[in-house]
Amino acid sequence: MLAGVCARIQPPDEAARGAAADRHATLTKPAGSLGRLEDLGLRLAAIAGACPPPVPREATVVVAAADHGVHAQAVTPWPQRVTAQMVAGVAAGTAAVSVLAREVGAAVVVLDVGVAGPVPAAAHVLSRRVRAGTADLSRGPAMARTEAVAAMRAGAEVGLELVAAGAECLLTGDLGIANTTASAALVAAFTGAPAERVTGRGTGVDDATWERKAAVVAAALDRHRPTAGDPLGVLACVGGLEHGALAGLILAAAASRVPVVLDGVIAGAAALVAAEVEPASIGYCVAGHLSPEPGHAMALRRLGLEPLLDLDLRLGEGTGAVLALPLLRCAAAVLGQMATFDSAGISPGSR
Amino acid sequence: MLAGVCARIQPPDEAARGAAADRHATLTKPAGSLGRLEDLGLRLAAIAGACPPPVPREATVVVAAADHGVHAQAVTPWPQRVTAQMVAGVAAGTAAVSVLAREVGAAVVVLDVGVAGPVPAAAHVLSRRVRAGTADLSRGPAMARTEAVAAMRAGAEVGLELVAAGAECLLTGDLGIANTTASAALVAAFTGAPAERVTGRGTGVDDATWERKAAVVAAALDRHRPTAGDPLGVLACVGGLEHGALAGLILAAAASRVPVVLDGVIAGAAALVAAEVEPASIGYCVAGHLSPEPGHAMALRRLGLEPLLDLDLRLGEGTGAVLALPLLRCAAAVLGQMATFDSAGISPGSR
Repeated sequence: MLAGVCARIQPPDEAARGAAADRHATLTKPAGSLGRLEDLGLRLAAIAGACPPPVPREATVVVAAADHGVHAQAVTPWPQRVTAQMVAGVAAGTAAVSVLAREVGAAVVVLDVGVAGPVPAAAHVLSRRVRAGTADLSRGPAMARTEAVAAMRAGAEVGLELVAAGAECLLTGDLGIANTTASAALVAAFTGAPAERVTGRGTGVDDATWERKAAVVAAALDRHRPTAGDPLGVLACVGGLEHGALAGLILAAAASRVPVVLDGVIAGAAALVAAEVEPASIGYCVAGHLSPEPGHAMALRRLGLEPLLDLDLRLGEGTGAVLALPLLRCAAAVLGQMATFDSAGISPGSR
Repeated sequence: MLAGVCARIQPPDEAARGAAADRHATLTKPAGSLGRLEDLGLRLAAIAGACPPPVPREATVVVAAADHGVHAQAVTPWPQRVTAQMVAGVAAGTAAVSVLAREVGAAVVVLDVGVAGPVPAAAHVLSRRVRAGTADLSRGPAMARTEAVAAMRAGAEVGLELVAAGAECLLTGDLGIANTTASAALVAAFTGAPAERVTGRGTGVDDATWERKAAVVAAALDRHRPTAGDPLGVLACVGGLEHGALAGLILAAAASRVPVVLDGVIAGAAALVAAEVEPASIGYCVAGHLSPEPGHAMALRRLGLEPLLDLDLRLGEGTGAVLALPLLRCAAAVLGQMATFDSAGISPGSR
C-alpha cells in the first residue's frame, strides 16, 4: 500500500508555480510586496498544479497519538497516562488544539497508533493502534520494522480517506509523553548532529532531566548506529509510532496533491522520514511555525522549509500548524481574488 | 472632543492581566507552552478588563487614505492618482486588504481624510476629507495645526462609531502614495534617529529615489526642527492626514477598551503621535507584523511593542494587521475554552 502511495507522488508543478509568479506580477500591489505570503501562494499553486490554487477551506488536523517506552528513563516529569488523558481532552474539544482548530475552522481527528492506556471511543478518535507504546529505545529497538511500516500505513490510509472525504489541507498534530526524546534521536540520526545539539527542554524540563535526556539520546544513537539511508530502520530503532503515522500522512498528502502543514519538532522528525522515503513529498509540506526545540530548526534546514510563524510555541498537538492555516487560505485567496492592474485601469510605476 | 476621548483612557487593567496569567497556569498544557499567544491573551484581558477576554469576533479595518504633497519631490515612482484608484479597489473588494479581510472575517471601511482626487461613493467609503492632500513637507508645514487636529478627530470619531456599532477590535490600514516618506520623518522626529536610518525603500524604490527620499526627510527635519513633546506640531509639520486619523483611531480604541491591531510603518508612526498625546493608549495596541521599513522596527521599539508576524510584508493597506487577527481570536479563545487540569482530572508534573 505504501509503495502505491509513493508511486503516485509527483514533484510539485513548476508550470503552475511559474503561472502564480506571473499572476502575482499583475496584481494591484507593488511587486513582491506581500513578501512570504506570495512565496506561499506560489507553493500552493505548485502543490495543486493550478493557478490560482484552491483556497484550502476544508482542513483537518490529524493528531497522531502514541506512547514511548523511553519514558522509563525519566526524560520528562509528566506521567505516561497523560497521553491518554490528553486524547480524552481532544475528544471533549477542550484541548488547546481543539480550541484553536474551532477558532480557525478546521476539523480535528485523533489517530491512536500506539497509546499505552485506554482512550475514549469517539467519532473523531480513530483507533489504529499498532502496539501499546514503543519499547524503550535506550535498551533496544523502539519497535519492529513491520510495526514501523504499519504505523506509516495507518497514517497514509487516514490521509487518503480524509482527502477522499473532502479535506483540501492536512495538518499534523501529535500527542505522546516523551515524544521530544524520540524526535531528537530521529533528527540526530538523519542530520548527523550530536545528541546535545538536538535535545531540547520539551515541555520545559529542568537541567538534570535535560542532561539525562541528552545522555539517553546519545546512548541510543551509539547503540543502534542508525543509517539515514534506511528510514524505516531509523524509525524502528529510535522513533515513535506517531512519527511513522505522520510520515505516512505526509506521503498521502503528496500523493493527493494537497498541502500538509507541519507543526513542530515531532512533525519535523517525521518529515525527515518521509523525505528519505520519497524526497518529492517535502514539496507538499508547509512549515507552520518554528519551535524552540533545537532539533526543529535543524530538521527544517535539512528539509529546506522556512517556518511561517515564530511565536515560541512548544505545546505540540498541532497548535502551531493550526495557527498557520489562515495564512495558507489568505495566500491562495490573494491569487484568486485580487484585481489586476489591467482590470483596475492602474498603470504602475509611471509618475 | 479629543480631550474627552483622552480623558476616558485608563491604563490597561493589571488585575485582569494577573487573572489571565493565573488562569493560564491552570490550563491543560505545560506552563508557558503557548509562548507569545499567552502573552497576547494576557494583553487582551488587560485591555478588556476581563478574564477570559472576549473573542474579538467583530473586527473592522479602518483604511485611512490621504495624499502627500511631498510626492512632488519624486520620492516614489507611483503617480499620485493611484491613491484614489486604490480607494476604488477597496470599495470594489478587490484590493489586497479586501481579500484578506474577507478571508479572516473582518469588515473594511475606507476613511478618506485627504485624498487629492475624486473617490467613489460607496457605503464603506467614509468621506471626512480635511484637505485634498497635504502640502509638500520639504517646503513648508504639511498642514495647519488645526488640520492635524481635524484629522485626528475624524479618526477618533469613526473609531467610537464603529465600537458603538459593535466592533470588538479595530485594525489600522492606510492608503497614500508617498506615505512612507512622511512616516520616516515622523519616526525620526519622535525617536531622534537620523533620516538615513529611518528612510526605507517603501514599495521598492531604486537607489537614486531612496537617496532623494532620505535627503528630503533630512531637509524637512532640518527645516522644521520638530519637538517630540509637541505631537500635534510634529504631525502638522512633517506628517500625513492619515497619520492623524490613525492616531485618533488608536485613542478611540483605548478609550473604548478594545484592542487596535497596528499594521506597518504608517501605523507605527501614527502610534508615536498617540503615545505622546496619551501614553496609556499604547497599552491597547497590538503590533500585527514587522515591516522591512527600517523606521518600523524603530517605532515599535520606542513603543515597547513586539510584532506578531514577520512575513516581509511591505504592502500596507492594513494587510499585516488583518493577517494577525486570527491570532488575537485564538489567544482569547484559549483562555475561555480550554479545560483546566482540575476539570480534566490531570495532575501535571507528577510521574
